[in-house]
Amino acid sequence: MLLHLPATRSSTSVTGGISRRMLTLNLRRLERDGLLVRTVYPTVPPKVEYSLTPMAQELHASLTGLVGWAERHRAAITEARAAYDTLTKQEPDAD
Amino acid sequence: MLLHLPATRSSTSVTGGISRRMLTLNLRRLERDGLLVRTVYPTVPPKVEYSLTPMAQELHASLTGLVGWAERHRAAITEARAAYDTLTKQEPDAD
Repeated sequence: MLLHLPATRSSTSVTGGISRRMLTLNLRRLERDGLLVRTVYPTVPPKVEYSLTPMAQELHASLTGLVGWAERHRAAITEARAAYDTLTKQEPDAD
Repeated sequence: MLLHLPATRSSTSVTGGISRRMLTLNLRRLERDGLLVRTVYPTVPPKVEYSLTPMAQELHASLTGLVGWAERHRAAITEARAAYDTLTKQEPDAD
């Protein structure tokens, strides 16, 4: 998984709803935590590439599992809430 | 995985650092979301038992995976941060 960034500082363009400054800050934090490796290529203009470390790929798998759980059970949770609300209206505060 | 609760309302005893009221509220939410099943036994005093639903057991596995990741990599993250801080002191703002 690679992320390429135009190295031009001036661009304050927004990338996917996040400003360049916020994107850079977050990438720096991930790099500092050992989750990203940053490679600068001496092209003109210079190209900056971020790649996931093995540790980050493991985290990605764990998070994907969690997101998968949520997507698989979204409907069941909505139904459980509706059933619970109906039931507790009939027998308020049974505890 | 089962949780037994003394059914007495009066006890405002704290369980593991959480008040009985907060514990009951959180258990109700989890029950409402379909993650817990609540069984009341007609003993004297009545006994209330909470058990995980299959959906909750799946979530538990996902969360355990995430916690496991954090515990496995705690040291590596600390080292990565120290190395990054040393490096960025030498070449501030190389981006």
